[in-house]
Amino acid sequence: MSGKTLIEAYEKAAYPVGGTGPRDIQVLKEAFDEVSGSLESDMYGSGKVIEEFQDKMAAYLGKASAVFFPSGTMAQQIALRIWCDEKGIKRVAYHPLCHLEIHEQDGMKELHHIEPILLADKDRLITLADVQQLGEDISCLLLELPQREIGGQLPAFEELEDISAYCREQGIKLHLDGARLFEITPYYQKTAAEICALFDSVYVSFYKGIGGIAGAILAGDPGFTEQSKIWKRRHGGDLISLYPYIVSSEYYFDLRIGKMAQYYEEARELAALYNACEGVSTLPEVPVSNMFHVHFRLPEERMAPILSGVIGATGVGLTAWLRHTGESSCSFEISIGDRYAGVPKDKLHEAFRLLDEEMKKAAVNL
Amino acid sequence: MSGKTLIEAYEKAAYPVGGTGPRDIQVLKEAFDEVSGSLESDMYGSGKVIEEFQDKMAAYLGKASAVFFPSGTMAQQIALRIWCDEKGIKRVAYHPLCHLEIHEQDGMKELHHIEPILLADKDRLITLADVQQLGEDISCLLLELPQREIGGQLPAFEELEDISAYCREQGIKLHLDGARLFEITPYYQKTAAEICALFDSVYVSFYKGIGGIAGAILAGDPGFTEQSKIWKRRHGGDLISLYPYIVSSEYYFDLRIGKMAQYYEEARELAALYNACEGVSTLPEVPVSNMFHVHFRLPEERMAPILSGVIGATGVGLTAWLRHTGESSCSFEISIGDRYAGVPKDKLHEAFRLLDEEMKKAAVNL
Repeated sequence: MSGKTLIEAYEKAAYPVGGTGPRDIQVLKEAFDEVSGSLESDMYGSGKVIEEFQDKMAAYLGKASAVFFPSGTMAQQIALRIWCDEKGIKRVAYHPLCHLEIHEQDGMKELHHIEPILLADKDRLITLADVQQLGEDISCLLLELPQREIGGQLPAFEELEDISAYCREQGIKLHLDGARLFEITPYYQKTAAEICALFDSVYVSFYKGIGGIAGAILAGDPGFTEQSKIWKRRHGGDLISLYPYIVSSEYYFDLRIGKMAQYYEEARELAALYNACEGVSTLPEVPVSNMFHVHFRLPEERMAPILSGVIGATGVGLTAWLRHTGESSCSFEISIGDRYAGVPKDKLHEAFRLLDEEMKKAAVNL
Repeated sequence: MSGKTLIEAYEKAAYPVGGTGPRDIQVLKEAFDEVSGSLESDMYGSGKVIEEFQDKMAAYLGKASAVFFPSGTMAQQIALRIWCDEKGIKRVAYHPLCHLEIHEQDGMKELHHIEPILLADKDRLITLADVQQLGEDISCLLLELPQREIGGQLPAFEELEDISAYCREQGIKLHLDGARLFEITPYYQKTAAEICALFDSVYVSFYKGIGGIAGAILAGDPGFTEQSKIWKRRHGGDLISLYPYIVSSEYYFDLRIGKMAQYYEEARELAALYNACEGVSTLPEVPVSNMFHVHFRLPEERMAPILSGVIGATGVGLTAWLRHTGESSCSFEISIGDRYAGVPKDKLHEAFRLLDEEMKKAAVNL
């Protein structure tokens, strides 16, 4: 069976396991249902609707100031550019699988002429030792918490504190790629502000665990955020009206910020179910956020029919796609949102009983 | 009386003269009212909702391909960058009051390192002779139709054709800043496609005469638009979901594209009323689009109370603000949209009778 068949099986599944729900226009309609039509638009970064949300997020993140951006791609390039200009060194350090390195068509290099130093190996987290052994001067170190491309892993909070202290000592600015910051507060047992206090600048997203439409906040000192507004205009992100993203970001933030502990617990529960199956493991083994990767010891052309079969038999939508990771392995990423709680437990356990059974059969046939 | 008082008088006016209506959240709610919640979001530039609108606009503009952007600032920098890279010359020419020169915090220079040659004087249009007398090689000439900052002026269509032919001959790409392109089709008596045929690349906006929320289209050959998508990602404009702007752009395009001739006629009517008043003139004298500038031969501290008085007495909201243009002069810009048709004609004429009366009194007291 082909990958297309897995998608087809998933799309018919009564109980998708990951995410908050379909990315359809209802997401916008729900957010605007109770908002008065007479609420005035923001105007090029000014006005009640944008300023109040920026203030609310600055307070939540424990920073003096915050600016709303249409995207994290824009916000993070700008953060790094400001720190590079301040220090006069157009060099930063980040993980080899950093969003800026692999998902942004080299915008940071092409538009800002900033050179990245890739720290650590692709398959592990950046450590204090990596930072201490940096051979070259840099303006800024970017840390992504959790490190998405390796399953959403996190360093111990004490190591973060040590990296932060070292960077301050060395005059290196520390920037947080907090695309999934809200999602790690339950594991660290820290507030977002306590985590952000270790960083000079912070980006957060509203369409990961929060489940909004799009949009980002960049927070830091007022000197930093004022400069970021100038760069936002330069990038073409200072739209006359950003309220479609602001209103929906605030609506879903208020709706879901209190659910992060639930998503985290559910991710741990689900990962345990996968790890109990033959030939299946999760990364990390015990999730530290609402996300993790599931690795299979079979190639995708063998896994797709097995998963399609399980989905078809139980209605439990485990995944819609598989990523090739080697000759005889594949994986997928899952993030827990509102949907998981709606999967009937008996169906879920039946799905994993079936999956384990099929994997055992496949192991015999290897 | 202060400028604040003029704004206050305007805000209480029963009959605002310019624009399509308040920039409030109702603009979004109206556009989404009849759209099914199950319509799927676009995903990073793909999907029915974005692709169909791009195709529709490409056809309307007579170009092979079109890409939706969150802003014109982003779209136009990218257009110029592509043409500069293609020719290997990082130099373009445009009007001294071009949007890129005065409203974008020098994004084109700071992000793309493109040098502009300023053609023509600030207070007049670019002519064929200006282009012919260019001393340096350029990759691209940008023309803004109409030239907003001088009241929305237009060259004769024949001069446009001559400039276009000259640029093709010389290997200079011609880019159209068509922020108000839809609004000039009645004057030229040409379709948008007939105008765009003179240009290699075209940008149009959906929140000027169309009255949408935000958003832009960049159109041209597929080779050009494919590159523009890469730069859109680099700028941080390739959002996971742009549908709030796409759906509303299409809704208001369909609603108002047929009204451009009406707005144009109304602008001519209103300009004539201003020009009949003592000490008042419009630029252009006879509008060539839905917009023009109104110039007063009195400084703003004397004009503000006169206008506040007229607005207070008649409820006709002529303007909310005045721009300083000299020791004894000031001006404002007006664009005609849906609101003008709702101003009762007797109130309108009473307002201009009063304005003329007050201007005559003021002239005696000079």
